[in-house]
Amino acid sequence: MTVLVLTCEEDVTADAVVLQLRRRGVPVLRLDPAEFPGRVDLAVRVTPDGQVTGHLATPGGRVALEEIRSVWVRRPGTPGAHVSAEQRAWITLECERALWGALRATGARWMNDPDALERSRHKLWQLATAARAGLRVPDTLVTTDPDEAARFQKTYADAGSGLVVKSVTGRHPQNPPLTLPTAAVPPDADFTGVAACATCLQQRVPKGTDLRLTVVGDRYFPAYVTPRTPTLDWRFLPADASTWVAGEVDGALRAAVRRYLQEAQLAYAAFDFAIDEQGDPWFLEANAGGQFLFAEIETGMPMTEAIAAWLAIRRE
Amino acid sequence: MTVLVLTCEEDVTADAVVLQLRRRGVPVLRLDPAEFPGRVDLAVRVTPDGQVTGHLATPGGRVALEEIRSVWVRRPGTPGAHVSAEQRAWITLECERALWGALRATGARWMNDPDALERSRHKLWQLATAARAGLRVPDTLVTTDPDEAARFQKTYADAGSGLVVKSVTGRHPQNPPLTLPTAAVPPDADFTGVAACATCLQQRVPKGTDLRLTVVGDRYFPAYVTPRTPTLDWRFLPADASTWVAGEVDGALRAAVRRYLQEAQLAYAAFDFAIDEQGDPWFLEANAGGQFLFAEIETGMPMTEAIAAWLAIRRE
Repeated sequence: MTVLVLTCEEDVTADAVVLQLRRRGVPVLRLDPAEFPGRVDLAVRVTPDGQVTGHLATPGGRVALEEIRSVWVRRPGTPGAHVSAEQRAWITLECERALWGALRATGARWMNDPDALERSRHKLWQLATAARAGLRVPDTLVTTDPDEAARFQKTYADAGSGLVVKSVTGRHPQNPPLTLPTAAVPPDADFTGVAACATCLQQRVPKGTDLRLTVVGDRYFPAYVTPRTPTLDWRFLPADASTWVAGEVDGALRAAVRRYLQEAQLAYAAFDFAIDEQGDPWFLEANAGGQFLFAEIETGMPMTEAIAAWLAIRRE
Repeated sequence: MTVLVLTCEEDVTADAVVLQLRRRGVPVLRLDPAEFPGRVDLAVRVTPDGQVTGHLATPGGRVALEEIRSVWVRRPGTPGAHVSAEQRAWITLECERALWGALRATGARWMNDPDALERSRHKLWQLATAARAGLRVPDTLVTTDPDEAARFQKTYADAGSGLVVKSVTGRHPQNPPLTLPTAAVPPDADFTGVAACATCLQQRVPKGTDLRLTVVGDRYFPAYVTPRTPTLDWRFLPADASTWVAGEVDGALRAAVRRYLQEAQLAYAAFDFAIDEQGDPWFLEANAGGQFLFAEIETGMPMTEAIAAWLAIRRE
């Protein structure tokens, strides 16, 4: 049975996992949905008894749909990339539903399930789910109401901790026009502009250390970083300003993270926690499509191997 | 507690349901996400204990998030409609995640849940799920492979029934540039063009009558139509060419439809069945956002009332 990897061509993380799978002798088909139709072919048949059969083919290989053991949703493009602009809207729509519908109709295991992935992109849902799972979350306000923002600011100014402002979507900084680093809110901030766009304000956690906890199935990979200069958002540090170090997490944190992942129905997620001055972790976010190779390279923890092992499990 | 109705302004179906809710004395807030930000305001706070509080406000009203009993996802627009084009991509993204994330974080009941709605848009998944639920489905092939298409055609030419071609997405004909009626495939069809776009071919069901079965929670509203001239796709009939008549469905069909809806996690769906010459129903599709007012007007069955009643149930 084959592992299907959905990602774009320029994905070195996928290269690493595919290499691990090949070493294990597991057949792999890697394709970018953007290449469909054109360089990717599909046939899927649903017979009256509910059987789903067919094939997916690329210039590099071909797989029977019923032989797909798992699907790794990495950085898939949108169908129709090579279709003329005039025809694209219709062809993209039809081909998107055809490809993803075919995969949803097979019994393949997902890392991650497309619905779980979409749900997990909502930070407010993440925070509420994390708190219910027993994780400590910072008090958070998302609003377009300047008065609410000012009241929230006053609460935390009075408490002495202050606020940070961050994006609601938490997109990766490799999308620079669409991301800003998390920043401290000055005590004299003018919140008028909040009315123009939903704004995420959060209780500032007094942290010295960040924990990136990557979870693959039931394997936990905790990496800690303590920047030489304190920072609010490690994603924007210069490459040489910090070092990730492998560490441990206690049983209580593991159990709460497990409850979160069960509720979220995710097989993979990269959690960001801030460690406060008492050593307690605060949940900041869980990125179901988060990167892990940077932490693997610095810590030596075998995340690539763990993902390959999870994908290699045969479906029931 | 309030019912939140998410739809555009020009939605007479929503008007009818809102009227029913008001007659029952149930508070309603109707808003179009397209009006956010600008004419819609949001504040949502997630506190460390996992409580979700805040408000949604329009020029017409205001509701506390914790007072939303149910959300009716009808025809919601995309946030940022009134934002300048230059800023729109970022503001739409942030505001979409903020609004839908806030609603997902409340415990409100959904008609329909956004993830279930998205999953249900995949016709291949529908067919496989329907067959597993015990519904009879026509043999279906979706492909970009001309040879597969030709082989499928030959199977059904030999069997004497022939094929129809339809869209994979099944969009409503009110999107004319993006929809074509279901059509018979001629015996001498040239399938070369199939390579350009995923194409849905289906065993032709010899039908005289169509059944539109609208399901609201556990209430079933079967409407039958027998066009004066046989047709493959009743959506494209002239308005005076057919009449919908209220009817019954047997216990076996109800039970199979119930299994489908449980698997699909849908509170509402409009099922299309073709009734063959033996009187047996064939599942064609289940539209989780399907219209019902046309059938209510012709048959008198109280679907509007049923939707209002479902939305009015208080959350646990």
